[in-house]
Amino acid sequence: MPDPAAKSVIGIDFGTLSGRAPVVRVEDGAELGSAVHEYEPGVMDRTLTAAPADAGIVTLPPDWALQSPGDYVAVLRKAVPAALADAGIDSADVVGVGTDFTACTMVPTLADGTPLSEVPRFADRPHAYVKLWKHHAAQPHADRINALAHERKASWIGRYGGLISSEWEFAKGLQLFEEDRELYDAMAHWVEAADWIVWQLTGRYVRNACTAGYKGILQDGEYPSADFLAALAPGFGDFAETKVAHEIGRLGDAAGGLTAQAAAWTGLPEGIPVAVGNVDAHVSAPAAQAVESGQMVAIMGTSTCHVMSHDRLVEAEGICGVVHGGIIDGLWGYEAGQSGVGDIFAWYVEHQVPGRLHAEAADRGISVHQHLTELAYAEPVGAHGLVALDWHSGNRSVLVDHELSGLVVGQTLATRPEQGYRALLEATAFGTRVIVETFVDAGIPVTEFIVAGGLLKNPQLMQTYADVLRLPVSIIASAQGPALGSAIHAAVAAGEYADVRAAAAAMGAVDRDVYTPHEPDARTYDRLYDEYTLLHDQFGRGANDVMRRLRSLRRTVLA
Amino acid sequence: MPDPAAKSVIGIDFGTLSGRAPVVRVEDGAELGSAVHEYEPGVMDRTLTAAPADAGIVTLPPDWALQSPGDYVAVLRKAVPAALADAGIDSADVVGVGTDFTACTMVPTLADGTPLSEVPRFADRPHAYVKLWKHHAAQPHADRINALAHERKASWIGRYGGLISSEWEFAKGLQLFEEDRELYDAMAHWVEAADWIVWQLTGRYVRNACTAGYKGILQDGEYPSADFLAALAPGFGDFAETKVAHEIGRLGDAAGGLTAQAAAWTGLPEGIPVAVGNVDAHVSAPAAQAVESGQMVAIMGTSTCHVMSHDRLVEAEGICGVVHGGIIDGLWGYEAGQSGVGDIFAWYVEHQVPGRLHAEAADRGISVHQHLTELAYAEPVGAHGLVALDWHSGNRSVLVDHELSGLVVGQTLATRPEQGYRALLEATAFGTRVIVETFVDAGIPVTEFIVAGGLLKNPQLMQTYADVLRLPVSIIASAQGPALGSAIHAAVAAGEYADVRAAAAAMGAVDRDVYTPHEPDARTYDRLYDEYTLLHDQFGRGANDVMRRLRSLRRTVLA
Repeated sequence: MPDPAAKSVIGIDFGTLSGRAPVVRVEDGAELGSAVHEYEPGVMDRTLTAAPADAGIVTLPPDWALQSPGDYVAVLRKAVPAALADAGIDSADVVGVGTDFTACTMVPTLADGTPLSEVPRFADRPHAYVKLWKHHAAQPHADRINALAHERKASWIGRYGGLISSEWEFAKGLQLFEEDRELYDAMAHWVEAADWIVWQLTGRYVRNACTAGYKGILQDGEYPSADFLAALAPGFGDFAETKVAHEIGRLGDAAGGLTAQAAAWTGLPEGIPVAVGNVDAHVSAPAAQAVESGQMVAIMGTSTCHVMSHDRLVEAEGICGVVHGGIIDGLWGYEAGQSGVGDIFAWYVEHQVPGRLHAEAADRGISVHQHLTELAYAEPVGAHGLVALDWHSGNRSVLVDHELSGLVVGQTLATRPEQGYRALLEATAFGTRVIVETFVDAGIPVTEFIVAGGLLKNPQLMQTYADVLRLPVSIIASAQGPALGSAIHAAVAAGEYADVRAAAAAMGAVDRDVYTPHEPDARTYDRLYDEYTLLHDQFGRGANDVMRRLRSLRRTVLA
Repeated sequence: MPDPAAKSVIGIDFGTLSGRAPVVRVEDGAELGSAVHEYEPGVMDRTLTAAPADAGIVTLPPDWALQSPGDYVAVLRKAVPAALADAGIDSADVVGVGTDFTACTMVPTLADGTPLSEVPRFADRPHAYVKLWKHHAAQPHADRINALAHERKASWIGRYGGLISSEWEFAKGLQLFEEDRELYDAMAHWVEAADWIVWQLTGRYVRNACTAGYKGILQDGEYPSADFLAALAPGFGDFAETKVAHEIGRLGDAAGGLTAQAAAWTGLPEGIPVAVGNVDAHVSAPAAQAVESGQMVAIMGTSTCHVMSHDRLVEAEGICGVVHGGIIDGLWGYEAGQSGVGDIFAWYVEHQVPGRLHAEAADRGISVHQHLTELAYAEPVGAHGLVALDWHSGNRSVLVDHELSGLVVGQTLATRPEQGYRALLEATAFGTRVIVETFVDAGIPVTEFIVAGGLLKNPQLMQTYADVLRLPVSIIASAQGPALGSAIHAAVAAGEYADVRAAAAAMGAVDRDVYTPHEPDARTYDRLYDEYTLLHDQFGRGANDVMRRLRSLRRTVLA
């Protein structure tokens, strides 16, 4: 029997490029040790590098992004034992396992969970592999699903802000159906990687409530109807019933116990509970102790994902989805997003910042981002005379339009590079405010704004968010938010806490109200936000569709 | 007596930073030799460096820009003899002198032409010095003049596109009147530097028809009335009559003969004719053989000045001015302008282009401008997906609004620096098309587009102008357009040709139709131009005054 004070859990976070597995103390969420495993082959977006050598070079069309499931198992075999060694604990003290995954990342499998890519005769076929979340080749299929949903006034489409994504289960499934029918027919299950890894750990296939709702269009217990699916493509009518539908597991429940094989892979005790699968963004909410109505967590990295639970169901414009029990069991879980945030800043630094500023940053021994930030924030709000739209990667919420693009207005011959950088930082804060106000207007007030993700390390950016939102900004206090969230679910699945709320209170980590609004600056930002919303509506809601026309022209002349 | 085949003239071009003086053959306009003199102290915009040492440091307020008249005389004393030496000719073969100047550049003088700055007791007073064209501190005075002109429906205001500039004679004069009344009272004449230098050469004060009209509000033989001026400020009523009005000289006429003193300064024969003064941009028209109705010359440098003569008088929106005999005697001379062109490209290269592109250009041994141009034009029109407004330095024509600023729309994470650069090149072409279309719509068709100035060396830019304007683009064939224009006027003043038309035909230099429109590209540019005009009107004509508000906010927060 484990020593109560020594009890720990493993939270395993499966990212896009690697998996990490910290060992976390059940009592207080302290991280005792950790290890990372980088995937190999990782993301396949040009050639099918995981195919057998005798298959030759299998090239992939544009917008494809595949993975090999062996990479995920390797995390169990390598990162978990290494983390246990790093923690220096007795593995018998580990009482549970939790996982989170990128989503929507889909594995086509046989009835026993064997990925089609591991069936030798399919190993040279791209459609046999895992379709990573950022596989974007199913856009035409998503377009058809959306068009039909609106034509038929499907009840579920409003739960997704009026649009389902090309990244999700049904769009990717339809692509598979139409492009490699033999594989589609051989596929018994179309499995979220989040659930597939739990299947590997427990021997049981349980669909987690989070991805089933957000990515699998499961609403009020039903998937899109057979009639609807058949109208998309003859023969596709039973897709949901035969390939997708399966037992649903609530977040925080145990999917099963660790199998002997998984115990051998990981060095963990056989039979310990393994939590139902989960998603990296959503699992960060309890890690940041955001478990009540109105606590919004923004996971700010290359893009931003906003998750918030609420006891009320509303249909808010342009949300990515609302799912019952999608974040915290018993509450409606809302998700919204900004498709470009950190990657816009990175684009600017790479393409629009002269060498002298890179050299100055190097001389100071700091990042160019930090140098630009410090220069830009040496002057007061509004001094740069700029306002920008942060749509370089399209707009996910609330406009749900990936034909949109960036805009900057106000440049003069005196405009300096750091001022343009700051205008982009501010634009993302204004974009967040649009989302927050949309939630508020829909009847689900945002009472607290908690930041997780890499961008929380920029204090000026955080202060800008506090000022622009006029909300206190809290900061997750863990460097591994998703893995900590998985550990919390592991502890609940193991029965160490009554529910995720209780576990989050003990194990979650947040520094509250680190940044509070500075009223004079907030007033000036209000004026810039007025300009932002004017441009937002002018260019985003049809008054001037120049962005769409420029994209269309670009496609025409390059064709 | 000079040998007819050896006859030459001197054209002296007084720029912002230096004066240049080529020796030009009368017969064919060939440049026989040349020299440049850099001003010292040059432009004074922070302290009055030309003041006597015992005056201490005299600091200048923001937006001031002064010069010392001694710099101009130094050009006569140094550049002219050096040019003669460079040409290796007998100075007895020089039959005339012509000059052109920046404008509106104003010299306050005593009755004999002595600049007030050379009166010892005034030498430490900023208002005693030359107010350079880019002295912008008289904006409040210009605003008052414009407001009153519209209130009183002054007949002349329409000749200036509805606005006179803070750079011009009356705004600068009113500033002098109100800020240093003692100097104003001591001043006998408020003299264009273009005329002051001719006064130094000939001993006679003659106001040239060009600056008198464009900068001095002389229309149909009248200045603004005493009643109008008195309404601006009590005591200012006789400004035009007592300080400004003087004999007007037609362009191409002789103002007088070279004085003994000027002959001693220059090494030129005493008594040879000196042409009436002129302006650098306007004098370029005959240098490019643009002497007939509809031939537009664009002097493209940091900014662009468009000059065109026509036999018809119209009032076109946003022109800088229309003056009878202002370019070619007997025709109405039209002037329009774009306040930022080359300086926008320079700003972009300095502030928005990463070091790797500078390094690549250095490796190739070419300018960053050329490197960016070649990269950007490797892809077809419209492939960058961008459209920009070229208002980084405001908009001179046709909106006449210096509160406007730049805009770029369409940026994505895939946008490369050279694409942004090309969008700016194109934006200036679109800005020119707006001016050309305004002229055409007003009833004065533009039949030919001739480029002078530094930017003609970018062939892709020139082709873009041909495509965007759907006009053949001709190129001035002289590296010293303004000085050649002055030389042409010198030859006419000397009686070597009947008029400027005849002299321009023999001495002017243009390569006709170097670039002709490429129809498929022109069609694609039409689509981008449609976007440009939509944005132009949206942001420039009041639908969204964000640019004005951003400037106002900037001033407020910096105050």
